[in-house]
Amino acid sequence: MKRIGVADTTFARVDMASAALTALKSAGTGFRIYRRTVPGIKDLAVACRRLFQEDGADLCLALGMPGPAELDQSSAMIASLGLQFAEVLEGKPIVECFVHESEASNATELDRLARRRAEEHALNAYQLLFRPEELARHAGEGLRQGFADAGPVRPRK
Amino acid sequence: MKRIGVADTTFARVDMASAALTALKSAGTGFRIYRRTVPGIKDLAVACRRLFQEDGADLCLALGMPGPAELDQSSAMIASLGLQFAEVLEGKPIVECFVHESEASNATELDRLARRRAEEHALNAYQLLFRPEELARHAGEGLRQGFADAGPVRPRK
Amino acid sequence: MKRIGVADTTFARVDMASAALTALKSAGTGFRIYRRTVPGIKDLAVACRRLFQEDGADLCLALGMPGPAELDQSSAMIASLGLQFAEVLEGKPIVECFVHESEASNATELDRLARRRAEEHALNAYQLLFRPEELARHAGEGLRQGFADAGPVRPRK
Amino acid sequence: MKRIGVADTTFARVDMASAALTALKSAGTGFRIYRRTVPGIKDLAVACRRLFQEDGADLCLALGMPGPAELDQSSAMIASLGLQFAEVLEGKPIVECFVHESEASNATELDRLARRRAEEHALNAYQLLFRPEELARHAGEGLRQGFADAGPVRPRK
Amino acid sequence: MKRIGVADTTFARVDMASAALTALKSAGTGFRIYRRTVPGIKDLAVACRRLFQEDGADLCLALGMPGPAELDQSSAMIASLGLQFAEVLEGKPIVECFVHESEASNATELDRLARRRAEEHALNAYQLLFRPEELARHAGEGLRQGFADAGPVRPRK
Repeated sequence: MKRIGVADTTFARVDMASAALTALKSAGTGFRIYRRTVPGIKDLAVACRRLFQEDGADLCLALGMPGPAELDQSSAMIASLGLQFAEVLEGKPIVECFVHESEASNATELDRLARRRAEEHALNAYQLLFRPEELARHAGEGLRQGFADAGPVRPRK
Repeated sequence: MKRIGVADTTFARVDMASAALTALKSAGTGFRIYRRTVPGIKDLAVACRRLFQEDGADLCLALGMPGPAELDQSSAMIASLGLQFAEVLEGKPIVECFVHESEASNATELDRLARRRAEEHALNAYQLLFRPEELARHAGEGLRQGFADAGPVRPRK
Repeated sequence: MKRIGVADTTFARVDMASAALTALKSAGTGFRIYRRTVPGIKDLAVACRRLFQEDGADLCLALGMPGPAELDQSSAMIASLGLQFAEVLEGKPIVECFVHESEASNATELDRLARRRAEEHALNAYQLLFRPEELARHAGEGLRQGFADAGPVRPRK
Repeated sequence: MKRIGVADTTFARVDMASAALTALKSAGTGFRIYRRTVPGIKDLAVACRRLFQEDGADLCLALGMPGPAELDQSSAMIASLGLQFAEVLEGKPIVECFVHESEASNATELDRLARRRAEEHALNAYQLLFRPEELARHAGEGLRQGFADAGPVRPRK
Repeated sequence: MKRIGVADTTFARVDMASAALTALKSAGTGFRIYRRTVPGIKDLAVACRRLFQEDGADLCLALGMPGPAELDQSSAMIASLGLQFAEVLEGKPIVECFVHESEASNATELDRLARRRAEEHALNAYQLLFRPEELARHAGEGLRQGFADAGPVRPRK
């Protein structure tokens, strides 16, 4: 039985965790989910650290939505660096799933983008744990999460 | 009995710690407060580290007010990265509560913003320690501290 | 028998790992390859950490292709810092091979650049492990990977 | 007997350490000073680490003067991050005292600013070690080092 | 017998290590040199880490030449942060000697600047190990490496 940690925020304007949990459950079985909700994206790294250390997670999914202001861009960088630090220190993966408000042009789009990216990164998390060969099969294929795939530069033969 | 560390600065132009302490005390009981005041925001990370290691804090609240100059923005990023490093290394949360002078247009607004954000982050700190289910209940709802909540993109059913 | 870890992504639009593997195999023998494919460049640092810790790699090659948007540039910096952190912590080298989409002006060029850089960094990785004296022989000669060498400022006597 | 480490540079254009040492000595007794002079600000973090580890310092004062060029601003950020890393890892404070050449408009001003800031940060260092209650008494009062205090937004009652 | 590690790159367009080695040898005796050449500046931090851990170096000299493009400036920051991390973690100094191509206006100047800076930082390295009092004697004197010294703001009495 593997353990998947899910860290999300009250700052995000979409309930990305629900979308992720649904996607995880429909992806397969063999795991239990541990969830921690924190105020903002800068709280995600330590939340993941605790999911690893206190809850025994094998992998974490970190869900966040940086706001549109310039300060929010700094916060996103800081939060991401914290995640790097936490996952390297632990030696276990944190799949970062951030949706910047500025990536969508209206509320409907933002909602759709956030849910879809959360679902697709949840699937990435699942594959990292249970089906790494699926990721290897798509190496270099220009996959994207939330938006349409960019695709490979040169179509596979 | 839990221990809450509060780190604040002489650089800040508002006594954010007083506001935070009042909010903590009215939030509930079951904790003791340890406080360390340092010169500026770059001193907060090690202050928190010492609150964890020497005072046995279970969680820290780091209060600071970056100035309006460009150098102050760099300092804020550096201070934040220090906090990430400290909390991940320790495996215990530091709730960062920074108010940038540039977020308010005059002294009255700055005073109000700083106190309100300190109070609301103090409440976040309390909930992280004692009522994590309260945070989970508001996941993805666009909560803000100091300003009005942005709210969820799509109203909850 | 040395172990070389290869970490690559599904985000990249060119299968850089294939190019790298071919180059490694034609460079010499005496090593076994361990590969991990992850979603994006921010997942490379922990993938390398695991290649070191779980697979016993002596060196890793980290292959990635940051996209053209501004956010992608931040991601590239974050990913690189994660790699620094991972390799210094481990005390074993990670050869970073990133190709920015913006470095090429069209798909054909991007494909060629990515493959060539992957090959040349694979050779660097091989030399770091097996022929460090080859690198020393070319110290200060303005070598480049993927593009033509810049060459030394002053021709060697 | 406490130990105060002082790290300074040959790059700085003002002998900030002399000003700091004078201020420390007139602040009180009960400490011994250990000093290490290094080439530039990027060498300060490891100098402090060694002051902690080899000389047994309880606190360090890091004095530096970033130059006016754009590259110097990057160096200042890197040096500051190094200091964060060193002090958090050690769990002992490093009081950073940097004076940017660009903060003064001429040589006389720069000299005065650098000495005054060094003195005032030396006093901060002294208080952190011996009189933390003095810092707490001035929390949120908008204190500055080298320039006039900004003062609290709202005068204390 | 002290051990000095020298890390340099094949990316640099000047053989900075030769200049540094000559300067080290004419500075004095009592040390042995260990050298590792790596592809680029981002490989220097781990090279130094290995010089410390595998070769027992007491100090490292890290020589690099960031290119003129914007991406090269990011690489330089990342490489520098890696060096900070490595030297603080180890508790032993790494003297960073970077020459940005953009600091010189032509090939002759770049060659001269790179060699001179390498020589002068080699001397700094020597003094850090064997004559720290020499550095202390020049504290705050505005010393530079590669260019003329800026000098102290106020001449010493």
